[in-house]
Amino acid sequence: MLTAEFLAKLTAIVGETNLLTDPVDCYAYAYDNSRKIFPPLAVAFAISQEQIQAILLCCNEYRIPITPRGRGTGTAGGSLPEQGGLALSLERMSRIISIDPANRIIIAEPGVLNQEIQDAARPHGFFWPPDPSSAPFCTIGGNLATSAGGPHAVKYGTTRDHVLGLKAITGKGELIKAGCNTTKGVVGYDLTRLLIGSEGTLAIITEATLKLTPLPQSTGGITAHYKNIQSCAKAIAAIMAQPKIPSALEFLDKASLDLIRSRNTGLLPDDTHAMLMIEVDGSDVEINETGQAILTACKNEGLIKSERVIDSKALWVARKALSPLLRDIAPKKINEDVVVPVSRLPELLQGLTELSQKYRIANANFGHAGNGNIHVNLLVNPDNPDEMNRAEACLSEVFNLVLALNGTLSGEHGIGSEKRAYVGLEIDSVTMNLMKEIKHVFDPNNILNPGKLFPKG
Amino acid sequence: MLTAEFLAKLTAIVGETNLLTDPVDCYAYAYDNSRKIFPPLAVAFAISQEQIQAILLCCNEYRIPITPRGRGTGTAGGSLPEQGGLALSLERMSRIISIDPANRIIIAEPGVLNQEIQDAARPHGFFWPPDPSSAPFCTIGGNLATSAGGPHAVKYGTTRDHVLGLKAITGKGELIKAGCNTTKGVVGYDLTRLLIGSEGTLAIITEATLKLTPLPQSTGGITAHYKNIQSCAKAIAAIMAQPKIPSALEFLDKASLDLIRSRNTGLLPDDTHAMLMIEVDGSDVEINETGQAILTACKNEGLIKSERVIDSKALWVARKALSPLLRDIAPKKINEDVVVPVSRLPELLQGLTELSQKYRIANANFGHAGNGNIHVNLLVNPDNPDEMNRAEACLSEVFNLVLALNGTLSGEHGIGSEKRAYVGLEIDSVTMNLMKEIKHVFDPNNILNPGKLFPKG
Ligand SMILES: Cc1cc2nc3c(=O)[nH]c(=O)nc-3n(C[C@H](O)[C@H](O)[C@H](O)COP(=O)(O)OP(=O)(O)OC[C@H]3O[C@@H](n4cnc5c(N)ncnc54)[C@H](O)[C@@H]3O)c2cc1C
Ligand SMILES: Cc1cc2nc3c(=O)[nH]c(=O)nc-3n(C[C@H](O)[C@H](O)[C@H](O)COP(=O)(O)OP(=O)(O)OC[C@H]3O[C@@H](n4cnc5c(N)ncnc54)[C@H](O)[C@@H]3O)c2cc1C
Repeated sequence: MLTAEFLAKLTAIVGETNLLTDPVDCYAYAYDNSRKIFPPLAVAFAISQEQIQAILLCCNEYRIPITPRGRGTGTAGGSLPEQGGLALSLERMSRIISIDPANRIIIAEPGVLNQEIQDAARPHGFFWPPDPSSAPFCTIGGNLATSAGGPHAVKYGTTRDHVLGLKAITGKGELIKAGCNTTKGVVGYDLTRLLIGSEGTLAIITEATLKLTPLPQSTGGITAHYKNIQSCAKAIAAIMAQPKIPSALEFLDKASLDLIRSRNTGLLPDDTHAMLMIEVDGSDVEINETGQAILTACKNEGLIKSERVIDSKALWVARKALSPLLRDIAPKKINEDVVVPVSRLPELLQGLTELSQKYRIANANFGHAGNGNIHVNLLVNPDNPDEMNRAEACLSEVFNLVLALNGTLSGEHGIGSEKRAYVGLEIDSVTMNLMKEIKHVFDPNNILNPGKLFPKG
Repeated sequence: MLTAEFLAKLTAIVGETNLLTDPVDCYAYAYDNSRKIFPPLAVAFAISQEQIQAILLCCNEYRIPITPRGRGTGTAGGSLPEQGGLALSLERMSRIISIDPANRIIIAEPGVLNQEIQDAARPHGFFWPPDPSSAPFCTIGGNLATSAGGPHAVKYGTTRDHVLGLKAITGKGELIKAGCNTTKGVVGYDLTRLLIGSEGTLAIITEATLKLTPLPQSTGGITAHYKNIQSCAKAIAAIMAQPKIPSALEFLDKASLDLIRSRNTGLLPDDTHAMLMIEVDGSDVEINETGQAILTACKNEGLIKSERVIDSKALWVARKALSPLLRDIAPKKINEDVVVPVSRLPELLQGLTELSQKYRIANANFGHAGNGNIHVNLLVNPDNPDEMNRAEACLSEVFNLVLALNGTLSGEHGIGSEKRAYVGLEIDSVTMNLMKEIKHVFDPNNILNPGKLFPKG
C-alpha cells in the first residue's frame, strides 16, 4: 500500500495529471509482451530529469519499489512492477533534444520511439542502426535498457554499439553523466555501456546521445530455399564464413514457413522446408558483389533455389508478423532467444528438432541467423499440465545445449523476470556476486526494478 | 619494502625464473611512454590465470600494490608502479589460444602483441580493427585496458567495439567471466566494456575474445593540401558531414609538416600549411565512389591541391614517426590527446593557435581528425621554469576550450597518472564517486594500480 503522505509527495513532484492511482487506470501498466500481469499501485509520468530524481529520492525515503517503463513491449517482463509500488513511465519524456547531422548525433529523451529517431535521422541521410521489429512502438530508453537489436545487427551491431553517452538517475537518486559527445573518448569507466542492457536495475536513463550511421545507398533482397533444415544451417555458416557481410540474414524453419503460408497464400512455395531471407546493402556495385558472394555461399546439396528478389516487402512484413502470429496459435508459447556461434547452428537446429520430438512439443524456430540468434518458440498449451512439464524439461535441455555449443541464453530480450531461473546456468556465482555488488552501488536500498535480472533468492 | 615472506610466496607461485627483484633488473619495468620513472620493488611474470589469481590473493594478504603491465608503451603512466610494490608483467602470457575464422573470433592471452593478432587474422581474410601506431610493440591486454584506437577508428571504432568477452581476475582476486562468444548477448551487466578502458584499476585481463572484421578488398590514398589551418579544419568537418566515410582521416598542422619535411626531403611541398592524409577502403568501385565524394568535400577556398596518391607508404611512415620525432626535439613535450565534435574542429584549431601565441609555447598538432581527436603537443623545455609555468596555464586553457566545445580530454591515451589533475574538469563529482565505488567493489583494498585514473587525494 502506498501511504497518502507518499502519494502527496509524488503529486507535488509530477502534478496531478501525471499520476495515476485508480487501479483501473494502473492496470494498463500491468503487462508487457511477457504476458504476465503485475499491476502497479500507482503510475507516475515524469517529464523532466529533475522530477525523476525527486521521485527516486522519495521512493528511497519510503522504500517504495519503482519500475521504469518505456512502452512495455519488452518480452522478458522487465517493465512489470512485480513487487507492486510505483511504475515510472517515461513515455511523456518524448522530446528529441537536438539533431546534429554534422556530428552524426541525435540527443533524445528516453520516451522517444525508435521509429521517431529513424524519421528524424532519415532526411539528413542517416539512420540509427538498432532495429527491433517493434520499432514503431518501443522507446529508445527501452532499447538502451535491453540493448535491443534486430535483423540488421548482423552488419551493424546492437544498441550498445550506437550510443556515445547518456544521463541517468541512479537507484539512489543521483544524476550521473556517462560517456561523451564524440566518437572517441576514454575518460573514466564506461558507465554508458554498463547501463546499456542493465534492464532498468541500475539507473533510469533520462537522456541519450545516439550515434547515427549513413543510410545505405540502396538495398537488395535474396531468398534461398532449402529441402531441409540441416542444409540451411550449413548455408548460414558458409555465408558468415566469407567476408561479404549481408545486412540481414534471417532464418525460417518449416513451422514458421507453414504459418506464413497459412496466412499468405502464394507467397512461398510448398516444398521449402527451411529458408533464408537475406538483405544486402550499399551501392549498386556492392550489392551486386556481396549478393554474388552470398549466392555462391548459399549453394549446397539441399538448396532448392536461391534468387535475387526485387520486391521483398511482403516477405518482410510476413517475417515481422511471425512473433504475433505465433501468439495467436499459442498465446502462452514459450519464447526463447538463444544465440550460438554461427558455425554451431547446424548442431543447434538439429538438437532442437530432436528435443521437440523427444518431448513431443511443437516448436517453431526463426531468427537473426547471421548473429546465431534463434527465436525458439515452444508452442505449448498452458492448460495441459503434462505438456507444460515436458516443455519445462525440454527448455532446460535447450539451454544446456546452447551453453554446450558456447552460446548465450539471450541475444536481445534479456533476463527480466522470465529468464531468472536460468541465468545461473550461464553466469557463474562469482561473476554474479560481483554484478550484485555493482547493483548495490547504484541502488543500495534495492528499490529500482527489484528482483529483475538476477536469479531469485 | 617487500618482506622475504611475501617474496617467498611469490616465488612459490611463479617460480624463480619468473620473478625479478634485483633493482637493476626491475628498472627496465620502471617507465612507459609518459617518460616518468617509478621502479617496482619486484617484477613478476605470470604465465597462467591461476598464477595471476594467486598473486592477487597474496598481494591482498600483504597489502602490496600491484600494477599490471603489457609492454609499457602507454602514454599516460598507467603501467608505472607509482606506489612501489609489484609490477605484474603479462608479456609471457602470449599465446593465441584459438583462431576461429568461421565465427570471426580470436581468443588470446593478454600478452599477445596487437601485430601478432593482425598476422594471425590476415591469412583468413580478417583483421582486428584497433590499430594504434604502436601495434608491433603493444599488447592486446594494454589495448583493452586503454580502449586503444588508431587512424582507422573513424570507420571501424576503437577496441571497445571489437571485443566479445573476456576473463579477468579482479583486484580482490576473483576470476570473472564477462561477455560471451557470440556477436549478440544481453545476459547480465556488460562487464566486458566496464573493464575495457579501466586502465588496469579494476581487474587484470587474462583472456580476450576478439571480434574480427573482414579485410577490405583494397585501399586508396588521397592527400589534400591547404593554405591555412582554418580551411583544412573546415574540410574535415565537410568530409565527415557527408555519408561516405573514409577509413582514415589524419590531420597535420604546419609544425608537424615542417618536422616531416626536415627529415624527408622532397616528400611534401613547401607551401602546404596544413594537410589531410586520407585513406578509403573497400572494393575498387567503393574506393572510387568514396574517394570522389571526399575529393568534392575537400574543396574550399584554402585548398591548394587534392589528389589520389598511388603509393602513400612513405607518407604514412612519416606520419607514424611523428610522435617519436617530436620527442627528439622536445623530449619532455606535453602530449595531449583531446577530442571535440568534428564540427567544432575549426574552433579548436583556431583556439590552439591563439593559445600558443598568448603563452608563447611552440606547439605541433596532428591526429585522427575524423574522430575529432587531436594530439596537441606543447614543445616545452623542462629546464625553463618560466616556460613550464606558461605551458601549464596554456594546457589548462586548452582543456577548458575542449570542454566548452563539448569535447573530451582524452580520445585514446586515458588518464593514468598523467591526466589525473584534470579528470575533475570533465567528470562531475557525483559520477566520479560512483566510479570510485565501483572501483571499491572490484578492489576493496585498493591494491590494484592504486591512484590511477582518479584525481589525487
Ligand atoms: C512485436 C514485437 C517485436 C519485437 N522485436 C524485437 C526485436 O527484433 N529485437 C529486440 O531486441 N527486441 C524486440 N522486442 C522486444 C522489445 O520491443 C524491446 O526490448 C524494446 O527495446 C523495449 O522497449 P520498451 O520501450 O517497450 O521498453 P519496456 O518494455 O517498457 O522496458 C524494457 C526494459 O527496459 C527498462 N526501461 C525502459 N525504459 C527505461 C529507462 N528510460 N531507463 C531505464 N530502464 C528503462 C524497463 O524497466 C524494462 O526492464 C519486440 C517486442 C515486440 C512486442
Ligand atoms: C609510438 C607510440 C605510438 C602510439 N600510438 C597509439 C595510438 O595510435 N593509439 C592509441 O590508442 N595508443 C597509442 N599509443 C599508446 C599505447 O601504445 C597504447 O595505450 C597501448 O594500448 C598500450 O599497450 P601496452 O601493452 O604497452 O600497455 P601498457 O603501457 O603496459 O599498459 C597500459 C595500461 O593498461 C594496463 N594493462 C596492461 N595490460 C593489462 C592487462 N592484461 N589487464 C589489465 N590492465 C592491463 C596497465 O596497467 C596500464 O594502465 C602509442 C604509444 C607509442 C609509444
